[in-house]
Amino acid sequence: MKTSCASHLLEKVREKNPLVHNITNQVVTNFTANGLLALGASPVMANAKEEVAEMAQLADALVLNIGTLTRETVEAMILAGQAANEKGVPVLLDPVGVGATTFRANAAKQLLKKVKMTVVRGNAAEVAHLLGVNGWESKGVDAKAANGDVSALAKQASIALQTIVVITGKIDVVSDGDEVLSIHNGHEWLTKVTGTGCLLTSVIGAFCAAGEQPLHASAAALLFYGVAAERAALSAKDKGPGTFQIELLNALSHTTGDEVLTLGKIGGVSHDKG
Amino acid sequence: MKTSCASHLLEKVREKNPLVHNITNQVVTNFTANGLLALGASPVMANAKEEVAEMAQLADALVLNIGTLTRETVEAMILAGQAANEKGVPVLLDPVGVGATTFRANAAKQLLKKVKMTVVRGNAAEVAHLLGVNGWESKGVDAKAANGDVSALAKQASIALQTIVVITGKIDVVSDGDEVLSIHNGHEWLTKVTGTGCLLTSVIGAFCAAGEQPLHASAAALLFYGVAAERAALSAKDKGPGTFQIELLNALSHTTGDEVLTLGKIGGVSHDKG
Amino acid sequence: MKTSCASHLLEKVREKNPLVHNITNQVVTNFTANGLLALGASPVMANAKEEVAEMAQLADALVLNIGTLTRETVEAMILAGQAANEKGVPVLLDPVGVGATTFRANAAKQLLKKVKMTVVRGNAAEVAHLLGVNGWESKGVDAKAANGDVSALAKQASIALQTIVVITGKIDVVSDGDEVLSIHNGHEWLTKVTGTGCLLTSVIGAFCAAGEQPLHASAAALLFYGVAAERAALSAKDKGPGTFQIELLNALSHTTGDEVLTLGKIGGVSHDKG
Repeated sequence: MKTSCASHLLEKVREKNPLVHNITNQVVTNFTANGLLALGASPVMANAKEEVAEMAQLADALVLNIGTLTRETVEAMILAGQAANEKGVPVLLDPVGVGATTFRANAAKQLLKKVKMTVVRGNAAEVAHLLGVNGWESKGVDAKAANGDVSALAKQASIALQTIVVITGKIDVVSDGDEVLSIHNGHEWLTKVTGTGCLLTSVIGAFCAAGEQPLHASAAALLFYGVAAERAALSAKDKGPGTFQIELLNALSHTTGDEVLTLGKIGGVSHDKG
Repeated sequence: MKTSCASHLLEKVREKNPLVHNITNQVVTNFTANGLLALGASPVMANAKEEVAEMAQLADALVLNIGTLTRETVEAMILAGQAANEKGVPVLLDPVGVGATTFRANAAKQLLKKVKMTVVRGNAAEVAHLLGVNGWESKGVDAKAANGDVSALAKQASIALQTIVVITGKIDVVSDGDEVLSIHNGHEWLTKVTGTGCLLTSVIGAFCAAGEQPLHASAAALLFYGVAAERAALSAKDKGPGTFQIELLNALSHTTGDEVLTLGKIGGVSHDKG
Repeated sequence: MKTSCASHLLEKVREKNPLVHNITNQVVTNFTANGLLALGASPVMANAKEEVAEMAQLADALVLNIGTLTRETVEAMILAGQAANEKGVPVLLDPVGVGATTFRANAAKQLLKKVKMTVVRGNAAEVAHLLGVNGWESKGVDAKAANGDVSALAKQASIALQTIVVITGKIDVVSDGDEVLSIHNGHEWLTKVTGTGCLLTSVIGAFCAAGEQPLHASAAALLFYGVAAERAALSAKDKGPGTFQIELLNALSHTTGDEVLTLGKIGGVSHDKG
């Protein structure tokens, strides 16, 4: 995976303008929709059991986010996920705050059991919780700084959950259980704006919809998003998180394939086939 | 209808500070409330069956938006709509993505059957779907560019649905089944920010609440909103959709009756009485 | 209570980074989360009956806001509130638009009966309604200017409801039924952005979580928020409510203890022990 592939895939996303169906939490609906529009994708939100299957089959990607879950939403997510699976539409899971309550933990387990996920994206604590591994701290829906080996965690989770796993943090990693790619872009201010992780999952969805295999699509989305965040931080100067949020939307719109090519930093942390 | 009427009506709206009750989708609640406040109206959101009828009768206009519908919300919308009808409060329908799923299509049909609408506002694909006319493309909740005759569509829809019909797009049109007015303001960046159409429906609600007949109130609201969008685009320069969203709120607050008078572009596309 | 205490408490909040659990209305979720993050607290939103008790017991403060209530949310609020009471987690009530409908009035009554509140924050009309006092106008969820004696109202409400009462308006007051403190900061543009009152209640929650007694914690939060709003108004110049909203988030992040110390204006309106 090279930054030139990411650059190329960004252009494909903008050309295709994929429809991303989000069943997401109440906090981030607006920001997610505006972020997808800014990037060049088409967002749609729908969470009624009566229509999610139909909507998911119209879409080019489906994103399931458990941030403000209710029992009804879990049912809707399963219906949508299974309909997407049937039609080969990629499905992404964002297990927001999965370790915080039994309800979220059970919902995530059920979703992973009943729906074939293409990508799972979370912070280290969330992914560790899905895997039943201890020692990764969290606080509500936010991960605390962790010192464990995220690459090993991503790889292990990918094998156990049979899906691409993305772990975001100071360094982002993505694994298909074999390769592990690490992305060294982004900015700490992403942690000061709510929903930047949720939006990233939807952006990965848009990249998966552009036809590339999901390992590379995820890495490309991480590179693009990280470079956009750096650009936004430059524009926002020291004005604060309000301005950074707005500049991130601007940057998602303006960041070009050339910038991703030049500024993207990707490495292969480990690669031991077979 | 002249731009001077629109200018005058804007001042009446700001003087009256009408209460607009919105039963709307989860994506646009915040943006809609801030847009109405910026304009000089008072927003209220309430969607529980237990209180919507009472709230609708307190309000000066009621806006029903089917963007993220559930079965419970449909019931609440009918209760609110009938309560508003009873008291002569104008009711507006925004049939977001009505063509995307059977559930939305049926909900819109039911709403149009059980509630007397004052204004229906949508893009061409949405209005065409309400009318059962084919050949207008859509994608999720967004209309694709269409080349059909929107004036004829608006007029036909107005007659069939027995309500004022507003179709927004590159040119906006509004018809009462007799006259068709066309508004040539606005900016393409409106399509890059989520909820600008939803907010516009609520703004038309505020103008209807100021007492003018709904054909002219709708045209006045379209002129005002279009001129405000142009002003916002000037302020946002090339910074991107994040900045444009903020500048639109600023412009809704600052755009004056004089600007609407000077910059508004309205035409009568057709007028064949009887 | 001196501004030096408020300054000190702000630093304690930022050091502790308290987790604030919000069961709030659909309009303000994003703004509330971003405001808490900007201040230096950790927001979490969760409103399913299945998980609210567990989440509330993880949290350092619980905020209940009745802005877009459903029957299910009322049940969730009671479960969360009682779980918080059990563990000594402070609970705050924001009775948004309580006077507008019978449903809201009954819900607020039930919440006050079944959950021990630490702080209730509202505008004068909302607090008067809780108390059954007439003569304070409201419009939907917004209070109209009122001329009554807010200090007396706060004191009376505090005694009747057995909780700290905060009334916000041109001048903010807070009472424990004995002392009444008045805060003379803030800016009128706070009334032009939706959710600034709701966010304030959550900010008071973060201050209560830092361990100070709730009368002083509330006063400190009001001073901080008022000074931040003044700073935001300076930065926003005359650009409008869109820019002010963003600058308020910036100011919540940047306003220092020293600024609160220097710019905070607090008085003791009345104090007649026993």
